Amino acid sequence: MTAGRRWVAEAVATALLLATVVGSGIMGERLAGGNVAIALLANSLATGAGLVALILTFGSVSGAHMNPVVTLALASQGELPWRQVPGYLAAQFVGAPAGVVLAHVMFGEPLIAYSRHVRSGAAQLVSEVVATFGLLAVVWACTRRRPAVAPFAVGAYITAAYWFTASTSFANPAVTFARALTDTFAGIRPADAPAFIAAQVVGAALATALFRWLLPRLPEATRIEEPV
Amino acid sequence: MTAGRRWVAEAVATALLLATVVGSGIMGERLAGGNVAIALLANSLATGAGLVALILTFGSVSGAHMNPVVTLALASQGELPWRQVPGYLAAQFVGAPAGVVLAHVMFGEPLIAYSRHVRSGAAQLVSEVVATFGLLAVVWACTRRRPAVAPFAVGAYITAAYWFTASTSFANPAVTFARALTDTFAGIRPADAPAFIAAQVVGAALATALFRWLLPRLPEATRIEEPV
Amino acid sequence: MTAGRRWVAEAVATALLLATVVGSGIMGERLAGGNVAIALLANSLATGAGLVALILTFGSVSGAHMNPVVTLALASQGELPWRQVPGYLAAQFVGAPAGVVLAHVMFGEPLIAYSRHVRSGAAQLVSEVVATFGLLAVVWACTRRRPAVAPFAVGAYITAAYWFTASTSFANPAVTFARALTDTFAGIRPADAPAFIAAQVVGAALATALFRWLLPRLPEATRIEEPV
Amino acid sequence: MTAGRRWVAEAVATALLLATVVGSGIMGERLAGGNVAIALLANSLATGAGLVALILTFGSVSGAHMNPVVTLALASQGELPWRQVPGYLAAQFVGAPAGVVLAHVMFGEPLIAYSRHVRSGAAQLVSEVVATFGLLAVVWACTRRRPAVAPFAVGAYITAAYWFTASTSFANPAVTFARALTDTFAGIRPADAPAFIAAQVVGAALATALFRWLLPRLPEATRIEEPV
Repeated sequence: MTAGRRWVAEAVATALLLATVVGSGIMGERLAGGNVAIALLANSLATGAGLVALILTFGSVSGAHMNPVVTLALASQGELPWRQVPGYLAAQFVGAPAGVVLAHVMFGEPLIAYSRHVRSGAAQLVSEVVATFGLLAVVWACTRRRPAVAPFAVGAYITAAYWFTASTSFANPAVTFARALTDTFAGIRPADAPAFIAAQVVGAALATALFRWLLPRLPEATRIEEPV
Repeated sequence: MTAGRRWVAEAVATALLLATVVGSGIMGERLAGGNVAIALLANSLATGAGLVALILTFGSVSGAHMNPVVTLALASQGELPWRQVPGYLAAQFVGAPAGVVLAHVMFGEPLIAYSRHVRSGAAQLVSEVVATFGLLAVVWACTRRRPAVAPFAVGAYITAAYWFTASTSFANPAVTFARALTDTFAGIRPADAPAFIAAQVVGAALATALFRWLLPRLPEATRIEEPV
Repeated sequence: MTAGRRWVAEAVATALLLATVVGSGIMGERLAGGNVAIALLANSLATGAGLVALILTFGSVSGAHMNPVVTLALASQGELPWRQVPGYLAAQFVGAPAGVVLAHVMFGEPLIAYSRHVRSGAAQLVSEVVATFGLLAVVWACTRRRPAVAPFAVGAYITAAYWFTASTSFANPAVTFARALTDTFAGIRPADAPAFIAAQVVGAALATALFRWLLPRLPEATRIEEPV
Repeated sequence: MTAGRRWVAEAVATALLLATVVGSGIMGERLAGGNVAIALLANSLATGAGLVALILTFGSVSGAHMNPVVTLALASQGELPWRQVPGYLAAQFVGAPAGVVLAHVMFGEPLIAYSRHVRSGAAQLVSEVVATFGLLAVVWACTRRRPAVAPFAVGAYITAAYWFTASTSFANPAVTFARALTDTFAGIRPADAPAFIAAQVVGAALATALFRWLLPRLPEATRIEEPV
């Protein structure tokens, strides 16, 4: 798999992920008649199901990280060559806002609008640490022991995490950056984004440290390869 | 597997798909007490779950395309002999309206009724391009690398796409044609159907071109066969 | 696997299935505040998820039919010895009402109460033919080609069929009999049960005939065995 | 896998399970506008999906019991050495309240608050017997015959059991203990917890006795090992 193919796959996958998150948020809020729980049910089920489909689809090309902290965590433990990292991050940070614009076009919203949705305070930041810790725990366990079920594990995790964290589990710096650009259900005020991203890095680092001890890399001879 | 068996399987599967889409739309709308988000939750979960079941059931016979742009895309890349295509398309375009009639019988509606549900404008057409691009991306990745999980990938994708596209993701010309024949929740005004179908062809072609480059056909010796 | 174990497994599995159908109907209706779509969402998701768990759990012992028309259809095509059939049917018809009683105990309802829920008319009966045809199509395809995914296919199918048929898809004579004994959300008036059961037999026979032609039994040497 | 790794995995997994149960209950109740069915839909789907993710993630380390009666049942039948049991139970009873505190921090609730949610009476206790019987049936069948699908079977079962039992299926003594420490949607009055736990032990013992007969331990040579 060439680097170019991987980067294009990451960009397209991340764009479709953001279109899913933002688009289903808009649709859910418009139709739910003011009941936020119903909107969030739609948003969380659509995002979880979308992640299953996207990881099954783009995983064979690039691994379907769609998330800078996943890319960095994998590189830090030797699962991805560092020289691939800049391309992955660039693809994610280009694809994410493109997906927001795409959702806005589909729903007749302005192409870009800074969010006014306040998401700040200690409870929100603890939520993002927990959310990203859990996501990276899933990623590490699947990478090390069960690659074939990773798409289902990630989709199930995020569906749950939308509900059990107070922040609805962004858990992804590229997603956080792009969601600052939509003044709809899924948005986050740009001023609140940097602290979210810092919390996500903390959560990812904690999970990576824990799983480095819990599930050490298997010797080459017995490693489980990603299904082709 | 003989051609006759394949065509019958496509016709029956497509009829059951339309019965699912239209029937669950009617049931959802009747029971939801005016909350459209609840009706769409029912409609999207039923359609996604129905697709999982139908592809697992009819996939072993015909591949369970149930979708002309899937059939044409596969033929264009040598995955299906062109001589099979007319039979597949005929089966899909016969089965789809039959499924709508079946749903109408089950719910006591007139057998056929032209929809008055307006679905037009650029936002709707962009939605159909995106919806069909995503569907064909899933189909190509599963066909080339992960045939065993295709039923789950397609079901998850469509559940998500009902919510993240403004058109609720028809993504299928036979489905679009047949949904023009129901004046219920899932309907589309006949005048709006041709543009939907054109947008679907564009989306399918874009995904086919992208995946021709992203995931080239594996050499025969290493190809992954559909489970029997 | 001895016959005694199979019969006990069928009885316990069928009882838990009815407890799931009736219990989740009661819970859904009590909590939904009059919105029937929300109650049916709960009822359909609980039943589908319950079927996945029950078939994964009891499938290794008895096949987890929990359904007389499934048992009879399999026997008619040589997949189950006829001498096993009476025990299977007895277990199902004993387990089903036991499950209804169990649900009533859990929810503080009278142990048995004849339902007053009218379910009659041609639309209902066509619905049961379609529902059972679809269920047996799933069963036949999985039995012949994909036994490992049968639990997921059946669970997904029933979740969808609750919504796309006007009868909410009983599709099972033992379930129909037992649901006549509960005057709650899932009930059916005893007078309406015989026609439902007749329609189910018709649907099962149609699917069995179709799949006998679509997916003939593989020669012994290449048959796919149920995972132990 | 060393004992220390197993115990840490059990504690972290159980904490995340409680964070999921309690956190999604708080979020669901806050957003549902008084419709308890919608809150329970969110709570049950989040818990089921969370269990899938947690068992896939921590199963490779400790088996991801997260439940004292699962640990005790496995030990009673020789599937876990008795010397491991105290560590497992300690980890579960430390992790569970830690998860409740974590949920409270994320949602801005007092760190600990005794629940005032009354859950008593025969119907509730029968519900807990049934709920735990079913859970252990799933665990035994998967342990003995289908370890690879255990995460999906358990997640599906609990999603269903939230709805078909009147107690919403605690089915876990560590979870019951910890849920006495939250005065939110998922709470249970401390005075009601001991009877719940007793009922859970009864249900687990019944299922263990039944499956000891239904699915005896396979001879060593043919045993199915947990995927690495």
